[in-house]
Amino acid sequence: MLGKVALEEAFALPRLHEKTRWWAGLFAVNPDKHAAEMNDLTDIRIKYMDKYGVGYTILSYTAPGVQDVWDAKEAQSLAVEINDYVAGAIKGHPDRFGAFVTLSMHDPDEAAAELRRCVTRYGFKGALVNDTQRAGPDGDDMIFYDGPEWDVFWSTVTELDVPFYLHPRNPTGSQHDKLWAKRKWLIGPPLSFAHGVSLHVLGMVTNGVFDRHPGLQVVLGHLGEHIPFDMWRINHWFEDVKKPLGLSCKKTIREYFRDNLWITTSGHFSTTTLQFCMAEVGADRILFSIDYPFECFEDACVWYDGVPLNLDDKRKMGRDNAKRLFKLPAFKDSEA
Amino acid sequence: MLGKVALEEAFALPRLHEKTRWWAGLFAVNPDKHAAEMNDLTDIRIKYMDKYGVGYTILSYTAPGVQDVWDAKEAQSLAVEINDYVAGAIKGHPDRFGAFVTLSMHDPDEAAAELRRCVTRYGFKGALVNDTQRAGPDGDDMIFYDGPEWDVFWSTVTELDVPFYLHPRNPTGSQHDKLWAKRKWLIGPPLSFAHGVSLHVLGMVTNGVFDRHPGLQVVLGHLGEHIPFDMWRINHWFEDVKKPLGLSCKKTIREYFRDNLWITTSGHFSTTTLQFCMAEVGADRILFSIDYPFECFEDACVWYDGVPLNLDDKRKMGRDNAKRLFKLPAFKDSEA
Amino acid sequence: MLGKVALEEAFALPRLHEKTRWWAGLFAVNPDKHAAEMNDLTDIRIKYMDKYGVGYTILSYTAPGVQDVWDAKEAQSLAVEINDYVAGAIKGHPDRFGAFVTLSMHDPDEAAAELRRCVTRYGFKGALVNDTQRAGPDGDDMIFYDGPEWDVFWSTVTELDVPFYLHPRNPTGSQHDKLWAKRKWLIGPPLSFAHGVSLHVLGMVTNGVFDRHPGLQVVLGHLGEHIPFDMWRINHWFEDVKKPLGLSCKKTIREYFRDNLWITTSGHFSTTTLQFCMAEVGADRILFSIDYPFECFEDACVWYDGVPLNLDDKRKMGRDNAKRLFKLPAFKDSEA
Amino acid sequence: MLGKVALEEAFALPRLHEKTRWWAGLFAVNPDKHAAEMNDLTDIRIKYMDKYGVGYTILSYTAPGVQDVWDAKEAQSLAVEINDYVAGAIKGHPDRFGAFVTLSMHDPDEAAAELRRCVTRYGFKGALVNDTQRAGPDGDDMIFYDGPEWDVFWSTVTELDVPFYLHPRNPTGSQHDKLWAKRKWLIGPPLSFAHGVSLHVLGMVTNGVFDRHPGLQVVLGHLGEHIPFDMWRINHWFEDVKKPLGLSCKKTIREYFRDNLWITTSGHFSTTTLQFCMAEVGADRILFSIDYPFECFEDACVWYDGVPLNLDDKRKMGRDNAKRLFKLPAFKDSEA
Repeated sequence: MLGKVALEEAFALPRLHEKTRWWAGLFAVNPDKHAAEMNDLTDIRIKYMDKYGVGYTILSYTAPGVQDVWDAKEAQSLAVEINDYVAGAIKGHPDRFGAFVTLSMHDPDEAAAELRRCVTRYGFKGALVNDTQRAGPDGDDMIFYDGPEWDVFWSTVTELDVPFYLHPRNPTGSQHDKLWAKRKWLIGPPLSFAHGVSLHVLGMVTNGVFDRHPGLQVVLGHLGEHIPFDMWRINHWFEDVKKPLGLSCKKTIREYFRDNLWITTSGHFSTTTLQFCMAEVGADRILFSIDYPFECFEDACVWYDGVPLNLDDKRKMGRDNAKRLFKLPAFKDSEA
Repeated sequence: MLGKVALEEAFALPRLHEKTRWWAGLFAVNPDKHAAEMNDLTDIRIKYMDKYGVGYTILSYTAPGVQDVWDAKEAQSLAVEINDYVAGAIKGHPDRFGAFVTLSMHDPDEAAAELRRCVTRYGFKGALVNDTQRAGPDGDDMIFYDGPEWDVFWSTVTELDVPFYLHPRNPTGSQHDKLWAKRKWLIGPPLSFAHGVSLHVLGMVTNGVFDRHPGLQVVLGHLGEHIPFDMWRINHWFEDVKKPLGLSCKKTIREYFRDNLWITTSGHFSTTTLQFCMAEVGADRILFSIDYPFECFEDACVWYDGVPLNLDDKRKMGRDNAKRLFKLPAFKDSEA
Repeated sequence: MLGKVALEEAFALPRLHEKTRWWAGLFAVNPDKHAAEMNDLTDIRIKYMDKYGVGYTILSYTAPGVQDVWDAKEAQSLAVEINDYVAGAIKGHPDRFGAFVTLSMHDPDEAAAELRRCVTRYGFKGALVNDTQRAGPDGDDMIFYDGPEWDVFWSTVTELDVPFYLHPRNPTGSQHDKLWAKRKWLIGPPLSFAHGVSLHVLGMVTNGVFDRHPGLQVVLGHLGEHIPFDMWRINHWFEDVKKPLGLSCKKTIREYFRDNLWITTSGHFSTTTLQFCMAEVGADRILFSIDYPFECFEDACVWYDGVPLNLDDKRKMGRDNAKRLFKLPAFKDSEA
Repeated sequence: MLGKVALEEAFALPRLHEKTRWWAGLFAVNPDKHAAEMNDLTDIRIKYMDKYGVGYTILSYTAPGVQDVWDAKEAQSLAVEINDYVAGAIKGHPDRFGAFVTLSMHDPDEAAAELRRCVTRYGFKGALVNDTQRAGPDGDDMIFYDGPEWDVFWSTVTELDVPFYLHPRNPTGSQHDKLWAKRKWLIGPPLSFAHGVSLHVLGMVTNGVFDRHPGLQVVLGHLGEHIPFDMWRINHWFEDVKKPLGLSCKKTIREYFRDNLWITTSGHFSTTTLQFCMAEVGADRILFSIDYPFECFEDACVWYDGVPLNLDDKRKMGRDNAKRLFKLPAFKDSEA
């Protein structure tokens, strides 16, 4: 399929190359290649995009990124630097690239202001945040965004009418990391990512964020971080047990998925799971994505192009849902 | 379908009625009914079983049970009391009831000995443990069973040739419970149960328990505590990334599911999810269960009987897999 | 779900009550009830619709209807009578009922003219035809509509911008009926219906009807009369074998399903098959229907309301696709 | 996957090479290659089998074969020639090849005798017949095998305890072929094959063949010739309507699929349809197959090896079901 849109696609700052290279060594089989692809914003990517039928990419700063910086000032400074950097890097390619705003999430007002700056000034397509913000003197605290103090931020997100991508972050800086340290091979995509994001986004659900901000659109990667698997079970317990006992959120979990949540195929190129998610979430709320350079274009695109599927849903998930959600400009093969 | 087998079915000690009733108040819409059903072992159950076509039930002590007792001596004493109690209660109904051994998991040798005692003396069908064992002076430590110190225990399990049911426990007694306290409606079936068990059992996988005990059979409830959803993704990262970087487990995740793991339908009466699990796990490793009295017979049995499904798989998942795995005696409608 | 739309819903002429009653005796367990429901157009139906959440029904004359009348004049006369009759019967309920035009299919021009009359004069929502038209001196010929002589008709259908429902007819009046006579229990829904319609509509595909009339919208009942099952296989043979050997149709079978074909759930209340069709055909081209009074409201509606499904697709298939395709007026719960 | 078994795999007599080549021209893109592969029994095949992980093949004479010969004597003579020929050709490769008996189906006793001869003398694995037998002075009659006159034949099949593969034949030699002649691109795999076989095998069901021969095992290709798609609908009409009206077969359609019917993947390499069939038919009754040389090893085997699936079911459908059903000897990778 031509003209696909991909939107969980990472880059890093070239000045942090050493750190990127070191980090890559923790999980990449070929860390040099990985670091090079991470530092590139347009050249290597365009080659891949052309080869594998991706028309448009929304870039985001790689995890853990600013959410790993527990000093609030440093975090804000880094976020601004990243945003200005990527804006400059892609401005010559408006028909191929957009970007998500990178945010320091230490302070709701500050985050709202930086989001507004980048959306209005640069035309960024939304924000992508790597789960909880590390904070505290040693980085051991975790800031969640599901409390009322974040309403000012979510109001800005909905006022600007841009989606918010809740991306995972490694479990670092908290006491319970000992649990993971002894099971280190489960850190990241095999398990901890989904644990972190599913807790966070369902916290937003049960703490009323979507009730107070009914227009808010939140995107989850990896086909929904396990949540679709338990749609029946969550619904059963919320509706039949928890609400009678006091859970106050206004809608059902299926309604939040209909009205507020989106999932992407990033890093989860499974035909079986995609079909299952089509039943539980619906093709109108599923978005193709790769997770490059953690995943490669070939795996994602050859798989997606070959998924046995009706053409309406393939086009919607591959391109048209993203065009609509992110109000994308014309891009290569955007009408193919 | 007649002659179904159910195997995640809880009871409590009558002498702890006050506590059972208090606990029920935390999550049951009708706590008195719940407590009464929890204290009953045979009478109410047989009525339900006859009405809804359940031929045989394997009973287990309700969560968190002994895993909530951080004093090792007290825990062992409670486990022994429970085992002797249930053995007595069901001995008049060998054609309708079996039991899982309740274990204190403070000490591998002690756990192995109690397992052996109950299997050899009482004919118990295996063990059911509620995730990690609370331990430490304030109950803040969590004992996992995936380290080499537990090999003596797993050797006994496999020598006795009985399955081990890894059941969830609420997240209590650790620092990271603060995360859950602010999202309390997610505690239990909606989320935390799956987080706990998926970490534990995948820890067993990556720490080599199944490599050292290739005959070990572990049962997971709730259609697999999210893991089947990510079968592709786990396999991809283990095989393509983590193993090249040093993960040493010998088989693929699909092979562990083929050789060592089982899932049950307890508390997850979703046709869509069941069908998905049939693709990813296979009908030969799926077992019907209810999760009574947290769930009711009617919801589970009317659903299962009505699932649109070929008859071979329905019979296998509803009864025959359990007959084979637990070497059950003849029971009501066991040949229907 | 409230406000569902149903569109394969049959009625008969009261003056033919004897025939209706006799016919009902061939396949209805309770032929008197069946005949009474068939003769009713609004009263009994509205009660069922209100009870089971159906907001709007598109009525059509019962099979085999005019397609069973091999005398061309008689057929045309009967069609006109039926159309005038149903127009009168429903005109007091524009918010609950619409109708499909009944057509004699002996002559393309005549059929086109009657279609135009009923659509422009009465606001009928499209046409429903019962497979091939019996013709010839003994009714042994079968007129298909996939030859170029029918282009004048299809041009009128697309000009009027109304869908065409290709409904089954029993295999009558041809030599090969001997095959069915010895397997009479397979006549109708168990097998022959799908054989007839699948041949006819795929004839339209391979004989270029949709290429010459790219705006034509054809609706198939019973979840597509087997065709979705073979989507891969048909596509494989058309694209890889038959086209290289000369098959001249311009698009792939998946494209015809995307651009020209719709399927309904009439008489096929299977969760498994619906989910499969969602993958192969897509929820944007699937329409709820009952097939009343051959099927009952309860079976269809209780099933559909309970199908485990995301809410977007449930609403689309249950109501919104039909609203869009048939440009329905406001009706009961049409905005629920 | 190594050691797969394939069982709808065609060959032709070398002496009929002209006819094979002419026939190939009707449907094969490369008729010379097709004819060469059809005439080869072992050499080319073993290369393909080794390359694509097929351990064992059961050969059968290509359609329409003897079922196209309406002269009874000629038909019988041809069948015997074919059986003796293939027996000789494969006898040097007992660990790679078996064969289905080719039968003239003009006379039940004669067919039974030839089946017995080949099974007892040559160890053939069952019979494969191409739908109805052409008969009558001009070949316009079609003999079905679902009447009581065939009981003697089915008794022999069950006594010998071998399966019967009901393979399609092109619709030739009957009046209703005019329907197909005008839709010639639908002849064969796109449609007519499934029409023929589904009528025949459901005729066997409704005419009581499986009730009179409860041990009879019938294999259907192409994932079941559409029947699984309508499992719910057939069951609904048989149980709720047709049986109250007099249909006398003893079991439900799901029971016949559990007890008597098998389906293969021949020519239908669709992940979606396979998964659907796993739900409706069950992995215990599904057999891998290719349909070589009409289909190529690469399409079938690369697809099957890559289907995202639990390993139990993959092994069963790919190999172990066939080993059990056909009591296969040890073959290459039969224990892999």
